[in-house]
Amino acid sequence: MNNIIFLAKDEVETFLPEGRMSKIRFLLEPCVVINPEEIIDQEAWIRLLGENNPEIILSAWRMRALPKQVLDEAPNLKYVCYLTGTIRLVISRSLIENGLLVTNWGDSISRTISECALLLILGCVRKVGYWTQKMHVEGDWSDASTVTQSLFEKRIGIHGFGMIARKLVPLIRPFSDRISAFSPGVPQSLFDEFDVSRADSLEVLFSENDVVVELEALTEETFRIVSEKLLRSIPPSGVFVNVGRGSVVDEQALARVAKEGRIQIGLDVYEEEPLSKDSPLRGLDNVLLLPHIGGPTTDRRVDAGDRALANLRAYRSGGELKGIIDLEVYDRST
Amino acid sequence: MNNIIFLAKDEVETFLPEGRMSKIRFLLEPCVVINPEEIIDQEAWIRLLGENNPEIILSAWRMRALPKQVLDEAPNLKYVCYLTGTIRLVISRSLIENGLLVTNWGDSISRTISECALLLILGCVRKVGYWTQKMHVEGDWSDASTVTQSLFEKRIGIHGFGMIARKLVPLIRPFSDRISAFSPGVPQSLFDEFDVSRADSLEVLFSENDVVVELEALTEETFRIVSEKLLRSIPPSGVFVNVGRGSVVDEQALARVAKEGRIQIGLDVYEEEPLSKDSPLRGLDNVLLLPHIGGPTTDRRVDAGDRALANLRAYRSGGELKGIIDLEVYDRST
Repeated sequence: MNNIIFLAKDEVETFLPEGRMSKIRFLLEPCVVINPEEIIDQEAWIRLLGENNPEIILSAWRMRALPKQVLDEAPNLKYVCYLTGTIRLVISRSLIENGLLVTNWGDSISRTISECALLLILGCVRKVGYWTQKMHVEGDWSDASTVTQSLFEKRIGIHGFGMIARKLVPLIRPFSDRISAFSPGVPQSLFDEFDVSRADSLEVLFSENDVVVELEALTEETFRIVSEKLLRSIPPSGVFVNVGRGSVVDEQALARVAKEGRIQIGLDVYEEEPLSKDSPLRGLDNVLLLPHIGGPTTDRRVDAGDRALANLRAYRSGGELKGIIDLEVYDRST
Repeated sequence: MNNIIFLAKDEVETFLPEGRMSKIRFLLEPCVVINPEEIIDQEAWIRLLGENNPEIILSAWRMRALPKQVLDEAPNLKYVCYLTGTIRLVISRSLIENGLLVTNWGDSISRTISECALLLILGCVRKVGYWTQKMHVEGDWSDASTVTQSLFEKRIGIHGFGMIARKLVPLIRPFSDRISAFSPGVPQSLFDEFDVSRADSLEVLFSENDVVVELEALTEETFRIVSEKLLRSIPPSGVFVNVGRGSVVDEQALARVAKEGRIQIGLDVYEEEPLSKDSPLRGLDNVLLLPHIGGPTTDRRVDAGDRALANLRAYRSGGELKGIIDLEVYDRST
């Protein structure tokens, strides 16, 4: 029996730098370290699993899908420690049902996405797109008619109250106590814990806040739920930021609202990515655009590495693991 | 005897909205409200002062300079409640020496400038200038070689530790505990209060931080103290942000360093303002430029209005005033 570390060189370097890899190898002894590039097809992958019959697999973005019959090939397999996020493409629901333990980066990288949200909020409030155009392209300056805004004391509404929203609250709290969220499934106790008030409806969230942050999970129910009507209800000079899922928003409607210039918009996610070259969202100075770089940032992949290390230690010592993918989490994940 | 409220219509509307003006008029009874536009020259100003012989003058940006002999004309004058910042151009040092009480907006508006600093820091860390060019102008997207950074756990150094720096600390604290500052005149107790470590020298501040924020006051000693050598000592991929005084930095050196693209730069202030149309700082995608809009933002002028209202109440009731311009503050002010 050999545990399997299935990671590419760049994944080891960015997720497990500065001695983390040695520590993990030690925890996983006996183990083999396999570069995903060496496993050229699913057949080679199944052979690898069968030959090593691992108890633990550590992997990341370049993991190959586990065959449904993996427990026939590798009956010893108990735990997949996945360094990154999306596990639906590599692990089938039935394996979780059958008791396979799976963890991913959980909330260890959420704060970087929250940071991106704060950047887009502040950038919109201060009209960075407009000033970048004025200062860099037009060689211009402010004048007597310039009106500026601050985030301080603004009403901030969050659509969704998952891990990223909860990491966003401490970043925006120094600016305002007027924070509310709309997220039907979330218990009141969680709102209380974060001192965030509950918006009664999506309509209230959009129409009664100066800043609206989109962080709702994408489901059948939330697909394009942010309609033109909702976007138009944001007060004049208001801000709409999306760092969650592009398809929660009706992007064509968003582009129409954007074009009118009445509100400031900051986006890191889109219905289709990469954003098409001729998207009407491009070229508008009231819209800040980032190419889905919210998180994790390259320099904070170590946080996911540290989370995996802690989970492997907990697994070995019978402690509590974080970011376990149970059926509920699996079904909610995207 | 009449107290004088010497404010333009737009100053009343933005500094004293929503009943604040009525409250102040009540506190200043008997008083006259004079629009600065009606006082066309210094002679009319002196006549106004003489005719009303005020105990209190409330004014702002459009105040005319008090004549040195103002106490001959208006011997009753005890208190100038100045809504805005720079008082050196309107009140001579000798009047302060002679016991004239003067307050200004003090630290009531500092937080908006700190907010602008955080925006520029986050914008530099995430390369917003670069991505704005890529996304809006080139119609492009990120690729496999894209390396991104976060502010979390970064070493942040602040040059200066005055009011704006002290308001910045709670905004950056959620991102990092590795905050240091260099400010020779500031007592250790203040560093301890804000849990900020002391950099031993300007050289250490620049060379041993990932993010350097310029907030030092402009004096003869600090004029262009941020040299090319210091700027070049910022680690690769580091950040330099200036929201303090343009002339603390050697701007020609800054432009040379900027052009090389090794660090990200965010600026709200310049040696000469407006920034000249052909400044070499314009057009570089590793430089974020704002046209000195740090603060106070238009929407937070009310904070200065509230400060003035509180000071006038304190003056009337024998309480403690905030933001008093004594000789020490006067000599340090710009």
